[in-house]
Amino acid sequence: MAPVRLDEIVSRFGGELIGDGARTVAQVASLERAGPDEISFLSHPKYRLRLGLTRAGAVILGGQAAAACPVACIVCDQPYVYFARVSQWLNPRSRSAPVRHPTAAIDAELPSSVSVGAGVSIGKGCVIGERVEIGPGCVIGEGARIGDDSQLYANITLYPGSVVGRRAIIHAGAVIGADGFGFARESDGSWLKIPQIGRVVIGDDVEIGANTTIDRGALDDTVIEDGVKLDNQIQVGHNVQIGAHSALAGCVGIAGSARIGQRSTVGGGSVILGHITLSADVNISAGTLVSKSINRAGTYTGTLPFLEHADWLKNFSRLRHLDAMADKIRALEAQVARLAEPKEKS
Amino acid sequence: MAPVRLDEIVSRFGGELIGDGARTVAQVASLERAGPDEISFLSHPKYRLRLGLTRAGAVILGGQAAAACPVACIVCDQPYVYFARVSQWLNPRSRSAPVRHPTAAIDAELPSSVSVGAGVSIGKGCVIGERVEIGPGCVIGEGARIGDDSQLYANITLYPGSVVGRRAIIHAGAVIGADGFGFARESDGSWLKIPQIGRVVIGDDVEIGANTTIDRGALDDTVIEDGVKLDNQIQVGHNVQIGAHSALAGCVGIAGSARIGQRSTVGGGSVILGHITLSADVNISAGTLVSKSINRAGTYTGTLPFLEHADWLKNFSRLRHLDAMADKIRALEAQVARLAEPKEKS
Amino acid sequence: MAPVRLDEIVSRFGGELIGDGARTVAQVASLERAGPDEISFLSHPKYRLRLGLTRAGAVILGGQAAAACPVACIVCDQPYVYFARVSQWLNPRSRSAPVRHPTAAIDAELPSSVSVGAGVSIGKGCVIGERVEIGPGCVIGEGARIGDDSQLYANITLYPGSVVGRRAIIHAGAVIGADGFGFARESDGSWLKIPQIGRVVIGDDVEIGANTTIDRGALDDTVIEDGVKLDNQIQVGHNVQIGAHSALAGCVGIAGSARIGQRSTVGGGSVILGHITLSADVNISAGTLVSKSINRAGTYTGTLPFLEHADWLKNFSRLRHLDAMADKIRALEAQVARLAEPKEKS
Repeated sequence: MAPVRLDEIVSRFGGELIGDGARTVAQVASLERAGPDEISFLSHPKYRLRLGLTRAGAVILGGQAAAACPVACIVCDQPYVYFARVSQWLNPRSRSAPVRHPTAAIDAELPSSVSVGAGVSIGKGCVIGERVEIGPGCVIGEGARIGDDSQLYANITLYPGSVVGRRAIIHAGAVIGADGFGFARESDGSWLKIPQIGRVVIGDDVEIGANTTIDRGALDDTVIEDGVKLDNQIQVGHNVQIGAHSALAGCVGIAGSARIGQRSTVGGGSVILGHITLSADVNISAGTLVSKSINRAGTYTGTLPFLEHADWLKNFSRLRHLDAMADKIRALEAQVARLAEPKEKS
Repeated sequence: MAPVRLDEIVSRFGGELIGDGARTVAQVASLERAGPDEISFLSHPKYRLRLGLTRAGAVILGGQAAAACPVACIVCDQPYVYFARVSQWLNPRSRSAPVRHPTAAIDAELPSSVSVGAGVSIGKGCVIGERVEIGPGCVIGEGARIGDDSQLYANITLYPGSVVGRRAIIHAGAVIGADGFGFARESDGSWLKIPQIGRVVIGDDVEIGANTTIDRGALDDTVIEDGVKLDNQIQVGHNVQIGAHSALAGCVGIAGSARIGQRSTVGGGSVILGHITLSADVNISAGTLVSKSINRAGTYTGTLPFLEHADWLKNFSRLRHLDAMADKIRALEAQVARLAEPKEKS
Repeated sequence: MAPVRLDEIVSRFGGELIGDGARTVAQVASLERAGPDEISFLSHPKYRLRLGLTRAGAVILGGQAAAACPVACIVCDQPYVYFARVSQWLNPRSRSAPVRHPTAAIDAELPSSVSVGAGVSIGKGCVIGERVEIGPGCVIGEGARIGDDSQLYANITLYPGSVVGRRAIIHAGAVIGADGFGFARESDGSWLKIPQIGRVVIGDDVEIGANTTIDRGALDDTVIEDGVKLDNQIQVGHNVQIGAHSALAGCVGIAGSARIGQRSTVGGGSVILGHITLSADVNISAGTLVSKSINRAGTYTGTLPFLEHADWLKNFSRLRHLDAMADKIRALEAQVARLAEPKEKS
């Protein structure tokens, strides 16, 4: 990408430029590292100190910070969103001419705009959209579908029949459509497999992180709606539904048949138990075990403060005796009431 | 699979048919989605409402629910187990004629009934059983063994010398036999690798989920006994032993040398610390950290209730002061005892 | 490896031999399993019972245990470190002559000492050091660099531009350099991707476990310093820095921009929140959520005791009412003070 003038940026994305519109920038960078050819941003007041020291060519920021900016700046309402747009413009997805690597094993008809890397396997009956890129080592099972402009990095597995929408970004090692964990227990304690005959159906504009797994449905489908963002190492059980524009951080586990509403967020390492329903606009803090349904928007938390180990030993052993502590308090209240009684009479 | 008559089902699997034995079904489905050509099941009384509305061709259920069933039904003792059998019958594992994909790199002798997908690598000295299917992108290290009728999906890695029993199902991205996490610490804080020379030995009828990892033993072997079911994204450390017919849900971590007894269950996201022993028939609730051995069958839990964030802030900050609270209660008890004493005397 | 004499071991690694120096051992083994041709070790007094029963050819141990050893022994200060050296000597990394598998797709110039397995893909401009081994199914993106003597097992993905130092060991399924989880939120709740233009830069002597993921930086780099050891299934977010010689156990999640100091350890399943800084020599217990920075060396814990489920129900429901319990204690203290006052006066 050739360098762009600041006035070009403002004419394309809006905002107010303070400084020389003819100055050019070629890349985005952090406030600390940016040089004169780079544009940075300030999204949070706590980083203002860094603003004062920046050597960036320009900074994207909100109105209150403009006076403190030592270099050119673009003033706008949502600096982080504005920055995202500028960065996307300066860093377009690189597309080379579509290739069909000779080591790929392709059993389906593909549009000529599709790119297929080395060692890829594409099964019979797959329907792949225009301009899809399938990186080296990916395995696309029979009858899977991938929408236009989707990008699959390397070593990804799509099981047969999985459906991925348009403009998906799927990172390396993700597994989509493996069997859900469904077994009936025999009376001797052994397990009888329930065939998992549902699919995974993923909407448009979904991003799926590295080594994330999404199981196929047991009977009905597992559904990921439009615009959902899944970080790395997430496990999504069978028949889960994740509402549009929800974002889940790394290492989250969602047990079977849970439903997450639209525009929700789940912090890293949280676990959502099975058959639970979260309404829309629910935010789960990192590390929280969600053990019952939530029917009201809001932020929910269930985590422990950590302590120096010696303090932890002293305090947390008490947790085994909370019930006894509550009983003692109740007994004390009764005793004190009795003690107080005659006194107040007297 | 051709449609089957209800009386065929009952003659094959037992149970009592209420309704027209000549009716046919071709597939299983959930109570909500099933149509007249499909058979469903009711395993839990709380779904009875759905039973009343079902349009299924037939429902598998227990005796108490039969009267409420608006369609044909099969009455049996364990509806979910019965359903599993019917579904397995209607959804047999699809086997095409064995293939040897030309892009596979095979350095071992394989039975002609073995199927090998594109891009597979099979090292020297591997012993692969009859009718094994090895999906695209799998890497089978030197000297590994896989028992008859096992099915490996795609992009799985078996390290050299790993042993897998018969009828295994291994899902995509699983890694079996990587080095355990074993290091000796030098006095300067750096780490010296302990060569991991044990193996992974897996019994018969084991299922291993997508992206699950099972480390080889440090000196002795890591052992997964018959019938164990592991969900996705589980980490099994070196020298762990998992007893027969235990089932572990997604995202569980088992640290080195832990032993899990037979027929146990571990809920999603739980962590079992190293060198701990759990006896047979232990059930660990989801999200529990098991920090000491358990020598009695039963259900064990150590999780937090979650709260609205504001309530959590108020309540959980107290956890740092539980010890002080206990001290206050004790002091109060002493004071109240002193106060009460003279009074009772008087 | 041919058997070695005990006096050869002592002359190479030091320590004091008690017993016949001409005795030979060919392999290491555990105290329980070792036979006369094997050497074992005792690193912890609690295993002394096993020492008494061992049939090992020799045992590496500390001075206090020598008298109790029924067989030859090598007395040294750090038996586990000594054992690691002996085991590394007896179990050298097996190196066959370098191969270039014909199914590999190699777009870069490689030294002749590099070994490339079946189905590997190596992009343009990669710089691969001497004696590097790249296992089957690995995908090395354009412009990635790997230092001398590094060993990559199977099905690993290095995204373009990733940098790995010398003597790295990377286990199967690891993904290095995938996009960090960076999105700006639009006012309608949808997410705008922030291009992730930083890299992953990994120092020398780093080991990375199976299916572990390390994201590239958003703007600056994600940095893993020399000698860091990462177990399986760890997630390292964008712009994280992990100090030299730190060791992280399985299933740990490190959120974006967290910094972990040198020589620290993090127990399995722990979560470190974003933008947090841990100073050097910090030990985090397994299962702990680190929600704020730690600026002093030490051990920190925040985990729950687990209980039999019935006891848990009784005790842990109280957690929702800790604040009320504290209020009751305060009220009791005030009441008791009032009750005590006139009495002491009287």
